[in-house]
Amino acid sequence: MATQRLAIVGADAAGMSAASVARRRDPDLEIVAFERGPYTSYSACGIPFYVSGLVEEADRLISRSPEEHRVNGIDVRTRSEVVDIDLDARRLTARSAAGEETHEPFDQLVVATGAEAAPPPIPGAEAIEPAQTVDAAERLRAALDRGGHSAVVIGGGYIGMEMAEAFVDRGLSVTMIEMAPQVMATLDADMAEHVQDAAEAQGVRVVLGTTVEEILLDETGAPVAVRTAGDCFDADHVVIGTGSKPAVRLAEAAGLQVGDSGALRVDDHQRCPDHDGVYAAGDCAESHHRVLDTEVNIQLGTHANKQGRIAGVNATGGDERFPGVIGTAVSKICHYEVGRTGIGEREAAQAGIEVVSASIKDRTRAGYYPGAGPIWVKLFAAPDSGRLLGGQIVGVEGAAKRIDVLATAVWAGLAVQELALLDLSYAPPFSGVYDPLLIAARATAKLL
Amino acid sequence: MATQRLAIVGADAAGMSAASVARRRDPDLEIVAFERGPYTSYSACGIPFYVSGLVEEADRLISRSPEEHRVNGIDVRTRSEVVDIDLDARRLTARSAAGEETHEPFDQLVVATGAEAAPPPIPGAEAIEPAQTVDAAERLRAALDRGGHSAVVIGGGYIGMEMAEAFVDRGLSVTMIEMAPQVMATLDADMAEHVQDAAEAQGVRVVLGTTVEEILLDETGAPVAVRTAGDCFDADHVVIGTGSKPAVRLAEAAGLQVGDSGALRVDDHQRCPDHDGVYAAGDCAESHHRVLDTEVNIQLGTHANKQGRIAGVNATGGDERFPGVIGTAVSKICHYEVGRTGIGEREAAQAGIEVVSASIKDRTRAGYYPGAGPIWVKLFAAPDSGRLLGGQIVGVEGAAKRIDVLATAVWAGLAVQELALLDLSYAPPFSGVYDPLLIAARATAKLL
Repeated sequence: MATQRLAIVGADAAGMSAASVARRRDPDLEIVAFERGPYTSYSACGIPFYVSGLVEEADRLISRSPEEHRVNGIDVRTRSEVVDIDLDARRLTARSAAGEETHEPFDQLVVATGAEAAPPPIPGAEAIEPAQTVDAAERLRAALDRGGHSAVVIGGGYIGMEMAEAFVDRGLSVTMIEMAPQVMATLDADMAEHVQDAAEAQGVRVVLGTTVEEILLDETGAPVAVRTAGDCFDADHVVIGTGSKPAVRLAEAAGLQVGDSGALRVDDHQRCPDHDGVYAAGDCAESHHRVLDTEVNIQLGTHANKQGRIAGVNATGGDERFPGVIGTAVSKICHYEVGRTGIGEREAAQAGIEVVSASIKDRTRAGYYPGAGPIWVKLFAAPDSGRLLGGQIVGVEGAAKRIDVLATAVWAGLAVQELALLDLSYAPPFSGVYDPLLIAARATAKLL
Repeated sequence: MATQRLAIVGADAAGMSAASVARRRDPDLEIVAFERGPYTSYSACGIPFYVSGLVEEADRLISRSPEEHRVNGIDVRTRSEVVDIDLDARRLTARSAAGEETHEPFDQLVVATGAEAAPPPIPGAEAIEPAQTVDAAERLRAALDRGGHSAVVIGGGYIGMEMAEAFVDRGLSVTMIEMAPQVMATLDADMAEHVQDAAEAQGVRVVLGTTVEEILLDETGAPVAVRTAGDCFDADHVVIGTGSKPAVRLAEAAGLQVGDSGALRVDDHQRCPDHDGVYAAGDCAESHHRVLDTEVNIQLGTHANKQGRIAGVNATGGDERFPGVIGTAVSKICHYEVGRTGIGEREAAQAGIEVVSASIKDRTRAGYYPGAGPIWVKLFAAPDSGRLLGGQIVGVEGAAKRIDVLATAVWAGLAVQELALLDLSYAPPFSGVYDPLLIAARATAKLL
């Protein structure tokens, strides 16, 4: 049998996880990875910390460079964009930065094209480069280094929040403008309020329920101000954090199926239906949500890495299954930490799932132990069984990673009655004698 | 029916949890609680932090004073020791500090006598007061305030470790002497080494595999030095942290059963067998260990509070079940945090349970995020099913509370193969893209 060739489209988390595991499993396999940008395997999640200056050098965000991948025997082609995939002919077309096109055969294919910014359709938005890649982040930081006093962040999700904090850390006057009546759409409104409090305490001006109508630019194309229906905000710098959509145009044009979530359909082996040997993974792909029992598109590095790995295993004759997601996420926003898992009020309502829910406020440590601060926990349970369906946490240092306990409980199908008596750890530097999660579980169990 | 009377013996965590819930459930019940010392409902776990000075005032450790309990309608008798219980006559004998005895009738009884220090049988040990109660801690701190340059801690468990750190924080030259070849007997030796490193880095001199033969006292009965077979250590202050045993003499004399663990036997409703209306809870009682499937005595505030509450519910006509324990514990020792749950190598060997086990070292945060530091995770799984049976964690800030994720997984019976792909949270301030627990689970799953 001739040497097999695995092609990877997109050389970030999902793509290079697939490439790396395939390399380890099959030393004879030819592996080629195409990446539009100059970097591979970087942490997009770290970009706000680079913009703020907390992380000094951009290359700290790179977990493995193209050269390192090449040393491992992966033929990485950077600044090389795949513009066409012919699934029948098993051949793709790659275009270099200089515009040269080459045709590249493959036997197996992993589509890991990621996500692309979904800016609002307003004048001026086209001039704002999404800070989604390391090179874009470098350009943004260079612009910040050149000066400016004011910044506007459009969109109050976690990325918008993190960028707003980064700008405040750099001494800018920062306004965040969010269309919805709350920040952090992934949280219920009551929990999101605490996050807004933290951002405001840090100096971010938060404007809710307001649509941006235009980004005003100067003659060089740089932002000057952001205009809403009733106001105009100075903006030497603008970041748009209104979300991303899966980058599926290429794959869809090649004939791969796109699901209701807007992302590529895959089975639990990351296989694209109807096309043997073709896999998709990461931000461009769907995941099965175990609580909602439906396909979703959640763009997170943690899923991208796992799915990429599984695609790489299965593309090399293995048999591994991605078990799905439950919507776990965590972020640090100003002096608060924020976590969520499973479903909340909004998802439950949208999916027509009845839940009971209770919120508690407690402290992260024993009251007498220095550094104790507030933690809010909100739980969602099935009214009949008490099965935990989701949870949200906001609080000071030590609060957010507790979400993993709730994630494990949601995953395992524990009921809140059982969670309330679970043998969780206690010592004064870490919690009161009843961990806040136990208190929240008891409060929820009482409603059943 | 005449008013019922509930008597509580021991007015700390378990006893006063029982009293408080009974008070809420039955406003007509007469509730009387007897406490040998002057304080109620205090945090023994906070004592090292009071000794170090991190917690300034002893009364910060008191979560509810006798007066507060009395306002709630609980007749608390402090400095009143129960010296006899007549279960047939439903009557106990209490002795005041002045030596006066009174006979007190009861209908229901909760035995919550706690634990008592188990010092080694060596000359001089009788002169060292165990620092287990708030008033003893006050006397220890007063002695420290009077001066001294050196301290010896006998016993390298978590309390000994915390006390050694407290002494170092106060500027003393500290030696810890432990009979076993490792510190922290609740951890495997390889994990305990990291904790020893942390203590030594903080300035604690750790002497292992060494038995103390005598505590040398001056003419006032104050410690001067500690002698081992080959050495003698200056010791202006001595703390003995060689463990505690359940305080069961009174209850045993009354006819209550003591199990193999040395603690009082109870069923899953905290009922003492063969004696209707008699309950035991907290450090003096046994708990069912869900992984070992046997009765154990684990002296921790978290169990005491839950068991006391359940005893109080059931003593007032309720029906609540204590679901058992899995040996979860956490502590902060110098700059490391330490957590453990389920069983480790030692318990597995003792119980004849075969396990596979893997250890990993990782970082607590993304490598580029400031404050990232080491975390070690060791997991234990059943060789056939991969079911997680236990875990141990040592590492810097943010490490230890992760033990609750493992506790939840052990409790729910998750296998390491499943844990390896679980949807745990990720953001750079909290972990690498694969949480250390996922990496450890994968490493363990590979051995199956």
